[in-house]
Amino acid sequence: MRSAIYPGTFDPVTFGHLDLIRRASSLVDRLVVSVATEASKQTLFSQQERIDFLREATADVRDVEVRGFEGLLVRHAEEVGANVIVRGLRVVSDFEYEFGMALMNRRLSAAVEVLFMVPGEAYTFLSSSLVREVALLGGDVSGFVPPAVERALREKFRAQAEFRARAG
Amino acid sequence: MRSAIYPGTFDPVTFGHLDLIRRASSLVDRLVVSVATEASKQTLFSQQERIDFLREATADVRDVEVRGFEGLLVRHAEEVGANVIVRGLRVVSDFEYEFGMALMNRRLSAAVEVLFMVPGEAYTFLSSSLVREVALLGGDVSGFVPPAVERALREKFRAQAEFRARAG
Amino acid sequence: MRSAIYPGTFDPVTFGHLDLIRRASSLVDRLVVSVATEASKQTLFSQQERIDFLREATADVRDVEVRGFEGLLVRHAEEVGANVIVRGLRVVSDFEYEFGMALMNRRLSAAVEVLFMVPGEAYTFLSSSLVREVALLGGDVSGFVPPAVERALREKFRAQAEFRARAG
Amino acid sequence: MRSAIYPGTFDPVTFGHLDLIRRASSLVDRLVVSVATEASKQTLFSQQERIDFLREATADVRDVEVRGFEGLLVRHAEEVGANVIVRGLRVVSDFEYEFGMALMNRRLSAAVEVLFMVPGEAYTFLSSSLVREVALLGGDVSGFVPPAVERALREKFRAQAEFRARAG
Amino acid sequence: MRSAIYPGTFDPVTFGHLDLIRRASSLVDRLVVSVATEASKQTLFSQQERIDFLREATADVRDVEVRGFEGLLVRHAEEVGANVIVRGLRVVSDFEYEFGMALMNRRLSAAVEVLFMVPGEAYTFLSSSLVREVALLGGDVSGFVPPAVERALREKFRAQAEFRARAG
Amino acid sequence: MRSAIYPGTFDPVTFGHLDLIRRASSLVDRLVVSVATEASKQTLFSQQERIDFLREATADVRDVEVRGFEGLLVRHAEEVGANVIVRGLRVVSDFEYEFGMALMNRRLSAAVEVLFMVPGEAYTFLSSSLVREVALLGGDVSGFVPPAVERALREKFRAQAEFRARAG
Repeated sequence: MRSAIYPGTFDPVTFGHLDLIRRASSLVDRLVVSVATEASKQTLFSQQERIDFLREATADVRDVEVRGFEGLLVRHAEEVGANVIVRGLRVVSDFEYEFGMALMNRRLSAAVEVLFMVPGEAYTFLSSSLVREVALLGGDVSGFVPPAVERALREKFRAQAEFRARAG
Repeated sequence: MRSAIYPGTFDPVTFGHLDLIRRASSLVDRLVVSVATEASKQTLFSQQERIDFLREATADVRDVEVRGFEGLLVRHAEEVGANVIVRGLRVVSDFEYEFGMALMNRRLSAAVEVLFMVPGEAYTFLSSSLVREVALLGGDVSGFVPPAVERALREKFRAQAEFRARAG
Repeated sequence: MRSAIYPGTFDPVTFGHLDLIRRASSLVDRLVVSVATEASKQTLFSQQERIDFLREATADVRDVEVRGFEGLLVRHAEEVGANVIVRGLRVVSDFEYEFGMALMNRRLSAAVEVLFMVPGEAYTFLSSSLVREVALLGGDVSGFVPPAVERALREKFRAQAEFRARAG
Repeated sequence: MRSAIYPGTFDPVTFGHLDLIRRASSLVDRLVVSVATEASKQTLFSQQERIDFLREATADVRDVEVRGFEGLLVRHAEEVGANVIVRGLRVVSDFEYEFGMALMNRRLSAAVEVLFMVPGEAYTFLSSSLVREVALLGGDVSGFVPPAVERALREKFRAQAEFRARAG
Repeated sequence: MRSAIYPGTFDPVTFGHLDLIRRASSLVDRLVVSVATEASKQTLFSQQERIDFLREATADVRDVEVRGFEGLLVRHAEEVGANVIVRGLRVVSDFEYEFGMALMNRRLSAAVEVLFMVPGEAYTFLSSSLVREVALLGGDVSGFVPPAVERALREKFRAQAEFRARAG
Repeated sequence: MRSAIYPGTFDPVTFGHLDLIRRASSLVDRLVVSVATEASKQTLFSQQERIDFLREATADVRDVEVRGFEGLLVRHAEEVGANVIVRGLRVVSDFEYEFGMALMNRRLSAAVEVLFMVPGEAYTFLSSSLVREVALLGGDVSGFVPPAVERALREKFRAQAEFRARAG
């Protein structure tokens, strides 16, 4: 288990993701955090912004590398020389979807195994979409995301609110 | 348990919602039915229409008040002086999502408790989206929603059908 | 159990659908595969394309007929003289949604029963949306869909990629 | 779909089972209700009692036959010449277990298909074990089981209560 | 919502139960914690022991009363004059079972409502059976149960271990 | 990720377990397959029999060791110097139970991580209890377990059947 990837949209990265990155990186020689492009779903932050947030937040974690990727996940795993895909299993995650995706990935590349990990107890309910929803409504998300992400969320939604207020 | 809110999109209100409103209102001194604005998801009916349907349908239920709200749910609960949020647990509801949302709300406001109630047996499978889907396809939804809502659904979708027919 | 319908979006048909069609057709005198129009959700292939893929793929299965339909499913069942609706139960399917839909259909027409069947083991995780996602990312889906569908997916997504490349 | 079996423990038969028997029998030429022996789990009523309750309760349903069986379900299906196994899908059923069992049965006999049916809305939560539990505690189960079963439950648990009272 | 009962086996009481008791008692005028007898399932501690643990642990919570009960839950609710049954919804709870039980209780007594509450985040995974399992294997459960319970568990299982060691 | 344990009851070992052992052993330097004693639940085969079956079946897999254990899992992990616990995630597994257990184990030992793996597609529905049930009823389980296990199951249940026949 030399190399593993931890793929996701990270829109934005939460303390739950960072917790998992720390746990996973302690088990492997090298962990690549792989940030998906916007191809298949609309994101709030651009791929570059999401990569930057992750790089800043993982600067102190050894043997972690943040990369963008596009296209098929198993292809990307092969390209970075990883034979393991790490996924977080939250309570609020769609377990059946994860299961189907894992079987599909195995069909697409027999060389890759998917490992599911459980995040820290305080993060089992946390998701990027919950964070976005709370931030959009003006709630305080500083307990769920790094400071830089919190600032960016506040600015993004303030701009939207002002635009709506002017347009209204 | 003086005051409780029963928040939702109510797009449109169904007999399942009304059943829950009756059950909840019998347990508290005052129940505020809180109708979310369109901010986070596209609705079929405007917030005002959804409020009007609810007001008409709950006119005979004591100590129930219908209000629109915008922004964070726990903030709204504080504003109306409610320390309880009531949610219906349908079989077809997304239990894990509700669970995560309840934990998130508690993080955002320690003063608020979420109570889940089970609607009457005949409504455990009923949802606004099922009703919209059936009405869109021309099905009879008079067994699921109040007469005023049924008429409004019929008119809305007839207009769409005519528009498509003319455009087609 | 003279006549049954097997309704769906089939966007596109997969080997899982075809497996179920074979199983279901062996149990009934006549099976109508009913392809939903685009009314309620955006599809990748047009209704006519989806019907054509199914017709080609089921040409050798006896007593199977492929039809498009629009509007309420139970109405369509009555029109084609079917008293049974067949649905596939995949692991990755939304069981609660299926359950609610079955109860709703029974309310709308007491004469119709819904039968759930389990597809072949190799297809319990397969879905049209997974296939579309993999194909969009350039993955090989020839193990999941008939050759004509595979070619059509490749062309459709190549056109999109070229368009993006030129626009980028 | 000439012959089907509807297997179960039926300990005891409930209105939910009877509802399903009516629905299933209307779809097939012949329905065998197959009552499992006590081999694998302890039952409250003997196999003969459970068969008798079912025979009395289905006396007026055409083309239904009640039988005991022992051993492998697919073997029994072959013996009675049935190529279909009918199972009820309640909300409270263990869907994943049913799914695994269906795949296992298919492995054991390729000739047999499992069809899942949804019972009437009023019975989606009903189970023999809930009925036993309520009857054991002295609750009224006349709304859930036929009169003969209700009497038998009352007598059985009264005898137990008297025995405990004397022993206590 | 004058009076509510919080029924359970409490074998033994955990910090999750105590958290829920505090939350529930803050919402009602009077909360009866109702400890089931051993009738339907084998327990590790006697009903009296389980009541004593709860009384000691809730001595400082106002308007809480601990009682044993036997027989049907809704009958007990009527006897203590409670129109509300409170249940904890843990992630690890059997949600479908709870749902069916709630509907069954409503059938048995229209006057009683079931309210589901979510325990504190740190307890969403905790259950009496997990605690018993860990204690049986010699693990430290002082983070999950009150000191008196922890001591009792230690003694109970030490006695068993010594008995096995002597018998072995 | 030098050392991992794969704990279980293995009553008996199935091809699903063996598939997972192969997958897990390819990712770690050393895999200990840890066979639980009979302490907490009744097993069909003794701990020694279950160990022997596993040793024979994994003789050709490198860096795999089979051991019995007793007591707390995390204590055992520490004793064998493993910082990873591997668990298989079958469709039919009790995901919520696994999740709770993983969080509990982390509470009991911060040094241990639980990794969930997905077995080969053909085994996602397979469980020891299904195998025992089928074998008990005289079904052919040679497609699910190694030959030695299949023989042992046949002998065990034949003895029981003869005993019952003589006693009957």
